[in-house]
Amino acid sequence: MSRFLSPTLEALTPYTPGEQPQDQQYIKLNTNESPYMPSPAVVAAVNEAEVEKLRLYSDPACAQLLRTAAAHFGLQPDQIMPGNGSDENLFFALRAFCDERHPLAYADITYGCYGVWCSLLHIPGNVIPLKEDFTLDPADYYGLGQTIVIANPNAPTGIALPREAIEGILQANPDNVVIVDEAYVDFGGESCVPLIDRYDNLLVVQTFSKSRQLAGARLGLAMGNAKLIADLNRVKFGMNPYNINRLTLKAGQAALEDTAYFDRTRAAVVETRNWTKQQLEARGFAVLDSRANFLFASTKRKDGGTLYKKLKENGVLVRHFDAPRIADWLRITIGTPQQMQGLLAALDKILEE
Amino acid sequence: MSRFLSPTLEALTPYTPGEQPQDQQYIKLNTNESPYMPSPAVVAAVNEAEVEKLRLYSDPACAQLLRTAAAHFGLQPDQIMPGNGSDENLFFALRAFCDERHPLAYADITYGCYGVWCSLLHIPGNVIPLKEDFTLDPADYYGLGQTIVIANPNAPTGIALPREAIEGILQANPDNVVIVDEAYVDFGGESCVPLIDRYDNLLVVQTFSKSRQLAGARLGLAMGNAKLIADLNRVKFGMNPYNINRLTLKAGQAALEDTAYFDRTRAAVVETRNWTKQQLEARGFAVLDSRANFLFASTKRKDGGTLYKKLKENGVLVRHFDAPRIADWLRITIGTPQQMQGLLAALDKILEE
Repeated sequence: MSRFLSPTLEALTPYTPGEQPQDQQYIKLNTNESPYMPSPAVVAAVNEAEVEKLRLYSDPACAQLLRTAAAHFGLQPDQIMPGNGSDENLFFALRAFCDERHPLAYADITYGCYGVWCSLLHIPGNVIPLKEDFTLDPADYYGLGQTIVIANPNAPTGIALPREAIEGILQANPDNVVIVDEAYVDFGGESCVPLIDRYDNLLVVQTFSKSRQLAGARLGLAMGNAKLIADLNRVKFGMNPYNINRLTLKAGQAALEDTAYFDRTRAAVVETRNWTKQQLEARGFAVLDSRANFLFASTKRKDGGTLYKKLKENGVLVRHFDAPRIADWLRITIGTPQQMQGLLAALDKILEE
Repeated sequence: MSRFLSPTLEALTPYTPGEQPQDQQYIKLNTNESPYMPSPAVVAAVNEAEVEKLRLYSDPACAQLLRTAAAHFGLQPDQIMPGNGSDENLFFALRAFCDERHPLAYADITYGCYGVWCSLLHIPGNVIPLKEDFTLDPADYYGLGQTIVIANPNAPTGIALPREAIEGILQANPDNVVIVDEAYVDFGGESCVPLIDRYDNLLVVQTFSKSRQLAGARLGLAMGNAKLIADLNRVKFGMNPYNINRLTLKAGQAALEDTAYFDRTRAAVVETRNWTKQQLEARGFAVLDSRANFLFASTKRKDGGTLYKKLKENGVLVRHFDAPRIADWLRITIGTPQQMQGLLAALDKILEE
């Protein structure tokens, strides 16, 4: 760090994203991308004429995308805000609804960025342990008097809470915002979007990175009561009014409109996930009940760190986290059936060594 | 605002971007976009194969773009950081080098976001008035003991400081970061990039929105000592590691490589600016000496607010600011010669009424 850095940043440990090798020599199952291309409608929408329009700023209000998203989710446009990836929306939400005197409650095993944002924004974190089996007890979140964020389904476990469990948390915290991070909801979770009109303290965050094949376009949607969304816009227009680029607005709109492709590809991922889970269990792995586009698995035959390294040596990238509770587990993104066969072949080889 | 909003945001007045009408019925001279399309190399780079790769995350390190930018600017890759527009880089810099105890010094008439970011980040602002003629006296910035940001050329005036003047400010503040916002430097200013290896307190911020025709792609570069850039990366990886999307990385690289197109289009803008300045002066306007892709002009024959409204009624959008010192001035982006003829015809009509 330089001698000029603000002392308020000295304690910050930034997030370490999964490896993004640029040479494409791996079976890449480490950052929960879709194995399928974006919809042909996206490819058609991001065309030469749109590239030529890049000389013009994007619409800071994102009006056209909001109209499409509102129709898709059964909401009003003022109940939605796009972000430069759902990471940005989550950051905006934490800036809006937490501060040094208003803590954030979140699970010990969940998306790592929540803690990083608390550090960056100087928000006290209330870290609530998951149960021994990695499930979340909703009662742990009742009457906290704190802003809450819950990834549902959770990452990296893949375990989902039913909508009623989230509803109980909303009812038990009427004076605090409950953020539900639904990055993985399209692979078998129950979305809380239908609850938005009933709970003014509910903020749902979704992403186009997983089930809509647009990780590289950076687009997420925050959805909630219009007043909550106005608060997020206050932060956005205070920070970076033109946060979404023109081509991403077009790509996102086309992806939302092609619901048939969305349904076909997420069904394919779910089918491959179920098959892969069986295959891993047949090899003696413990595999959590995932409703996401990844599996969280461990085996007593090799520790997690070694298995990660051996898989990488064998051309398969998965994600391994150092946190003590999950150091023996691997998060494995669901790829194509062929990619999963490649994973299993590599595992068979490694476990026989 | 909602009842959940953090009290730390109540005083924030977000930035109001210039109008971005989506129907393209105006001669649009209000947000300093280029009147020329992006380079044909950009159109070729953002192709169908790249759109299909959107399923994959972008490279959070932006390594390929950094290599190209380093070669272009005569720097090392670790002396550069891309941002989601230069707005994001400026925000990162203020987060890194200012806080409640470390104020930011900036001019009273300059880019409006500096003050907004101070409000969002709770940074005390030291607002230093420009001289009566809108020039900046470098001596006003000597020995301040504060982080400094100077737009050079300045907006909305267009007035530029010579490199030696900035160098004097750098020398007079060796223990504070001096941020030079060079959004408009390519239209006749002197860049401070050549000073980077001599001053470890210099941070230069440039954008692809003006001279590289990529306003809608959102890309800026922060350039400075490797330690300063590491500080910015600490904030970026603490906030939004995948802040630049894949297509923008490709577009930015292609735009940097096509130096011939860059030189041709910025020369065209400068030529049109000089011609337009003469035309406005012939009509009795006061026009500041602009080194940017806009002119700042006023006439005693109509007040600024009225002129802005009348121009809009006549199909020409320009930018008008309410701040008292400049309420009688208009900021007029330089378009094509034909667009500027449209502006002049509208002005002639309005001033004869």
